[in-house]
Amino acid sequence: MLKVQPNKRKILNDPVYGFINIPDDIIFDLIEHPYFQRLRRILQLGLTHLVYPGALHTRFHHAIGAMHLMGQAVQTIQSKGHSITQEEAISANIAILLHDIGHGPYSHTLERTLVSFLNHEKISLLFMNELNALFNNRLEMAIAIYTNTYKKKFLHQLVSGQLDTDRLDYLRRDSFFTGVSEGVISTDRLIKMMSVSGDELVIEEKGIYSAERFITARRLMYWQVYFHKTVIAAENLMLKILQRARELCQRGVELQASPALQFFLRSEKDKCNFSTLEVLEKFALIDDYDVMHAIKMWQNHSDPILSDLSNRLVNRRLFRVEIRREPISESEIFDKQHKLLKTIGLNREALPYYVFTGVIENNAYTPGLDRIGILLKSGEVQDLTLASDQVGLQSLAKIVKKHYICYPK
Amino acid sequence: MLKVQPNKRKILNDPVYGFINIPDDIIFDLIEHPYFQRLRRILQLGLTHLVYPGALHTRFHHAIGAMHLMGQAVQTIQSKGHSITQEEAISANIAILLHDIGHGPYSHTLERTLVSFLNHEKISLLFMNELNALFNNRLEMAIAIYTNTYKKKFLHQLVSGQLDTDRLDYLRRDSFFTGVSEGVISTDRLIKMMSVSGDELVIEEKGIYSAERFITARRLMYWQVYFHKTVIAAENLMLKILQRARELCQRGVELQASPALQFFLRSEKDKCNFSTLEVLEKFALIDDYDVMHAIKMWQNHSDPILSDLSNRLVNRRLFRVEIRREPISESEIFDKQHKLLKTIGLNREALPYYVFTGVIENNAYTPGLDRIGILLKSGEVQDLTLASDQVGLQSLAKIVKKHYICYPK
Amino acid sequence: MLKVQPNKRKILNDPVYGFINIPDDIIFDLIEHPYFQRLRRILQLGLTHLVYPGALHTRFHHAIGAMHLMGQAVQTIQSKGHSITQEEAISANIAILLHDIGHGPYSHTLERTLVSFLNHEKISLLFMNELNALFNNRLEMAIAIYTNTYKKKFLHQLVSGQLDTDRLDYLRRDSFFTGVSEGVISTDRLIKMMSVSGDELVIEEKGIYSAERFITARRLMYWQVYFHKTVIAAENLMLKILQRARELCQRGVELQASPALQFFLRSEKDKCNFSTLEVLEKFALIDDYDVMHAIKMWQNHSDPILSDLSNRLVNRRLFRVEIRREPISESEIFDKQHKLLKTIGLNREALPYYVFTGVIENNAYTPGLDRIGILLKSGEVQDLTLASDQVGLQSLAKIVKKHYICYPK
Amino acid sequence: MLKVQPNKRKILNDPVYGFINIPDDIIFDLIEHPYFQRLRRILQLGLTHLVYPGALHTRFHHAIGAMHLMGQAVQTIQSKGHSITQEEAISANIAILLHDIGHGPYSHTLERTLVSFLNHEKISLLFMNELNALFNNRLEMAIAIYTNTYKKKFLHQLVSGQLDTDRLDYLRRDSFFTGVSEGVISTDRLIKMMSVSGDELVIEEKGIYSAERFITARRLMYWQVYFHKTVIAAENLMLKILQRARELCQRGVELQASPALQFFLRSEKDKCNFSTLEVLEKFALIDDYDVMHAIKMWQNHSDPILSDLSNRLVNRRLFRVEIRREPISESEIFDKQHKLLKTIGLNREALPYYVFTGVIENNAYTPGLDRIGILLKSGEVQDLTLASDQVGLQSLAKIVKKHYICYPK
Repeated sequence: MLKVQPNKRKILNDPVYGFINIPDDIIFDLIEHPYFQRLRRILQLGLTHLVYPGALHTRFHHAIGAMHLMGQAVQTIQSKGHSITQEEAISANIAILLHDIGHGPYSHTLERTLVSFLNHEKISLLFMNELNALFNNRLEMAIAIYTNTYKKKFLHQLVSGQLDTDRLDYLRRDSFFTGVSEGVISTDRLIKMMSVSGDELVIEEKGIYSAERFITARRLMYWQVYFHKTVIAAENLMLKILQRARELCQRGVELQASPALQFFLRSEKDKCNFSTLEVLEKFALIDDYDVMHAIKMWQNHSDPILSDLSNRLVNRRLFRVEIRREPISESEIFDKQHKLLKTIGLNREALPYYVFTGVIENNAYTPGLDRIGILLKSGEVQDLTLASDQVGLQSLAKIVKKHYICYPK
Repeated sequence: MLKVQPNKRKILNDPVYGFINIPDDIIFDLIEHPYFQRLRRILQLGLTHLVYPGALHTRFHHAIGAMHLMGQAVQTIQSKGHSITQEEAISANIAILLHDIGHGPYSHTLERTLVSFLNHEKISLLFMNELNALFNNRLEMAIAIYTNTYKKKFLHQLVSGQLDTDRLDYLRRDSFFTGVSEGVISTDRLIKMMSVSGDELVIEEKGIYSAERFITARRLMYWQVYFHKTVIAAENLMLKILQRARELCQRGVELQASPALQFFLRSEKDKCNFSTLEVLEKFALIDDYDVMHAIKMWQNHSDPILSDLSNRLVNRRLFRVEIRREPISESEIFDKQHKLLKTIGLNREALPYYVFTGVIENNAYTPGLDRIGILLKSGEVQDLTLASDQVGLQSLAKIVKKHYICYPK
Repeated sequence: MLKVQPNKRKILNDPVYGFINIPDDIIFDLIEHPYFQRLRRILQLGLTHLVYPGALHTRFHHAIGAMHLMGQAVQTIQSKGHSITQEEAISANIAILLHDIGHGPYSHTLERTLVSFLNHEKISLLFMNELNALFNNRLEMAIAIYTNTYKKKFLHQLVSGQLDTDRLDYLRRDSFFTGVSEGVISTDRLIKMMSVSGDELVIEEKGIYSAERFITARRLMYWQVYFHKTVIAAENLMLKILQRARELCQRGVELQASPALQFFLRSEKDKCNFSTLEVLEKFALIDDYDVMHAIKMWQNHSDPILSDLSNRLVNRRLFRVEIRREPISESEIFDKQHKLLKTIGLNREALPYYVFTGVIENNAYTPGLDRIGILLKSGEVQDLTLASDQVGLQSLAKIVKKHYICYPK
Repeated sequence: MLKVQPNKRKILNDPVYGFINIPDDIIFDLIEHPYFQRLRRILQLGLTHLVYPGALHTRFHHAIGAMHLMGQAVQTIQSKGHSITQEEAISANIAILLHDIGHGPYSHTLERTLVSFLNHEKISLLFMNELNALFNNRLEMAIAIYTNTYKKKFLHQLVSGQLDTDRLDYLRRDSFFTGVSEGVISTDRLIKMMSVSGDELVIEEKGIYSAERFITARRLMYWQVYFHKTVIAAENLMLKILQRARELCQRGVELQASPALQFFLRSEKDKCNFSTLEVLEKFALIDDYDVMHAIKMWQNHSDPILSDLSNRLVNRRLFRVEIRREPISESEIFDKQHKLLKTIGLNREALPYYVFTGVIENNAYTPGLDRIGILLKSGEVQDLTLASDQVGLQSLAKIVKKHYICYPK
């Protein structure tokens, strides 16, 4: 049990888990830091709320929820006789708390657009290093856990693995706020089944059906929520808007946007050097408000492509999306474009913004190094797909790939 | 919408669905009938509450819950343009309401013991015929639906099929009262996805992941609840007690028990003719109270086997159960028995009551005639296992078979 | 944190709280004892399930739930700097676990009938003393807490007071299983607001609205569930059946019933001496099954009063109940009886079993010695009714009294 | 039952109620209109999420939820024999759907700042009139219901009264998303208890405890959520920022802000004429994004007051708030200000932005014309406070008034 100074002994109301305790002073202070407070302004599920209106929960809430589960996981593993020191416990809490701190506005949607050269995991690490300096190196062990350089590997698996507290929280939280009750998993039971064997995080044999449920829940959430047709339509529309804005910017056209957002729109994609504190500070300034506000403003921009696309997003006049198992043929794209040229008089420059294709793919579970290990009663550890009496479970590892085409209704 | 007389316009509180309306006068009257009221005294899950203490819900509650879902299913299917007349709607409601009325005490546990020659479905039908006579043949159509002789086959599928309102209710209700939150399914969504194609009940394509979740929920409930080790131990113990009681009875030994229970203990297994009203009436008199009360009394019976087994059940001193994938060898059984002869001085007659084996088997889904049909956007209907991008789903159809051995701790 | 032997480290699934841990070996052993296992066969809410079909939870489940809350309360109070030793923690757990062990079958309904001279609290104490002897005096402190002779009075208040873990659990559990969602209270928050001042259990000022909600929830549950018209009808019917059975017994008429139940029916009301172990052992043998089974048998008894009343209960043909604010006049009773003599030909002896009156009364909160103390920010403790800005809260202390008359429909 | 065109037969996932059907084509079209889509960008509870991080639900979601409840209420009232035509049903749905359409950004927080001269109800009416013109006068009856000029007064009460579908939804929704589980009310039961007597919306007598619970839930939500200390701190900070911005604007200082927001900052408070379509259109352009984005920008404004206050809000460095039952004395304010002048060197101009007082007041229930009428079994209708056996309930009508002072920590 960790000790917390009375004035920092805060309790948060979470509709998902009830009450969440802040387990330590340093965690209280990290949460208070502007880098972390910024996550209050970044939605966990981007534009998903256009389909599931309840899905307005933020990265802030998710990070704290995942930390709550980490606390439970640590306690369970300790109770089964595996040593986790207090410093390790706090560090694991910090690692999961900060694992998403590098997310930019509309996270997954825009990750490849604004800062294409770095993924959010790497930016998270930059923030952690920055905070480590501020907090007198007290985040060293948390960073080691995050980067998987700490000796106890299972702590890293709790932060980032097939069955980590990140996934446990987001599946449960996303199903809660979307109202997709079928996706609900029992985080309580999954955590109670956790143990450590060798240095590997494992699930006890009697939890095998819970692990199976976890995997089918993940599959359902992918296809029913994260890859919902209308979500794809909305996210691609936002992507196209930002691409157009960047293109105009680079051509020197004036655009209304916050200075920080302008900086990233103007910077050449591969030149932005995040290792300098200055750029990181700029990144820390942008959030969903910068992007959505800019798009609202761009409705009145003189560029007809930018203004039309922006207006479509603001008023939810989204493109039609067709999802298929086969790739979309070039000729179909050509036909669609041709038709648009005729009917609504789009010019050629606009075409790639109005008719385009993409691919979504997902596998619910990846065996291999980062497997879900099942601890058999015999003491042996087996990969979930082998331990299950469900031969077909192996097929969950198969990558399911789908193709889509977007075009105006 | 059905019309109900004001004095019969009852609303039931159900912790699972909230409020349940009684949709019609005849349904109100059927619920009031002693045959149906008797279901208040038969637990849905027999002795499962010895493991999951909340699992004390009754067949009465389940039957009414399933009827509630039938009402929703009928409304959904009507709203998609398929005709269901008011008489058909009421009849489908009656069919599902009465589908379990033939269950005896501790239903599944004792089905093969007290009345081995008839399963509960057939006894249900006998009760329905009886009630039909009482209600001036107003149950004709309900009986036709139940026996699948009614022209609209999909109504029968709603009563008894791979995805019927029976299963939908019991999975949801059982997971609710056991507290196994992982087993929760979204009956709402599954029903909203229902439609009819040809004369077959189908699930619309976008409900495919819901159907998948339904099947893994069923699998989990089987292995985690219905076939839980301690449940198997308790149910087999009760079975052995009744077998011993019957044996003693047939030998002419006196036993305390209600007259109706005595009747079934004494009757030769294959001679009991259920088509006579008299026997049916006797059957209608027995419920969980007869059996459990008798077992409480038998704790003091002079037969040491009967009294010891009974005392074990009452005070929850259950046998140990081992579940394995391979059959239990004769030699292992012999060894276990031999040891007991020595250690606790059991006599040979007692052995089969103290050391015995059994088999449990389950498949989550059986394709074939009674498949879950998926209505593709193309209008074609495919079996779920084919329609799913999840090739392994076919393996859900595989029968999983396990073996167990029971013996005293 | 308490240590438990691995083989006794059990976790219970509770649909209300999720998982419940058994906190100590002795608690595991107490739960296993037949005295406690017997509570599995005594419903918490007697015949309430005739109105709310989900209300089949038992005293067993409630006792374990209350123990779970006790564990949370102890932890909260410790975390606020008030010392509770490990022995005290375990003893408080035991005290609440066993607080209801003295309940007889259909508890509140029959408390005054079978064993009129002793209330269940006193019988609980007799059981605790018996168990204390069995467990080498390890229940001493628990008994002291239960009887309020232990020095730290607030521990007793957690077991039995205005806001004890008994009430917290039963309100939450009863509203859960009845489905009366309005009665749900936040046990989590109420417990988080608990503290100790002087030696008094108190609620911190910011929990004042939670305390208010607790009190109105209790009021609602009383009038909507515990005193529901049909519940009163059913309980009084059972009472009348037992009264009639006792009367016949004392006259020497033969009655089918388990030996233990017969013992209590035959014993003269005021002569049964519970201090002898023999009588306690007999009491330990009876539960709901004895009573309900006897009533089922009595349907065929030659006494027309007993058989008719029994048949009415089994088939739910209950009396009509009218509840009024004014006492029922003698003349009204006379008129009702007179009418029955004429219409259904009841004889005079039957009249008091068919037409009778009663009183129900309840106050949601009793200020005074056993008040709910509110710990103001100033450090002062005030009675809830004074601390609230809600002047009218004082009126919750008012006893609301209602009168009812029962007679055949 | 209303008919909807297939392509407009939409179902919304709502974590609160499950699935919500769009009941009619015109309602689908109204929801699609930019005026209504704008509510997606206005949080229901403003800055409450700074305390309860889940409270990010929008006016959009609330309006649709309230409409869902309206549908249930209409059905219940119809089922009790009171006529409501299909046109009336649709119109009541429209009235409640649009009742909040006039809310501006951060609704309650800024209502008195940006558009001080008109409350949101009046602006809602302006929007409705506009939409009525667009929809060929098909909103006439809805507007009549909203403005209480329609002959059936009870329809207006369902939109705006002591127990309207607006309150029912927001109490339930706010308690859901904040996680304040104590505030949960049973909308299902409250609606099932609704009826009409004369032309008044009433609650049947047996619903009296539900009505009481509704009122104490409302009281709890006010003091625990809506008037939470930190919420008051945040809302007042935002208010001060906007006041400062307006002051600077009127002095001619340049400020970054969207054109529409600038318009309202610059317009003199009492001159803005909303009856012109142009101003209404401008109002329709601003939402939470305009305000929060502006505040983010103003962190770098040259005015030290504006930049400091803005930075405080963005990084959640809020003022301290003290709430008391007595008014704050002038001398205390003076002392606090004096201290600040010395310690952090604030200049005199800044003082009213840094030290200020306010009043919060609430009564849970206002008897009188717009009472909650209880329909007694006698047929008589009584005010809730009289019908309740709870004499003190009258005191709920008492206005509770508290005073607060804010100043920097």
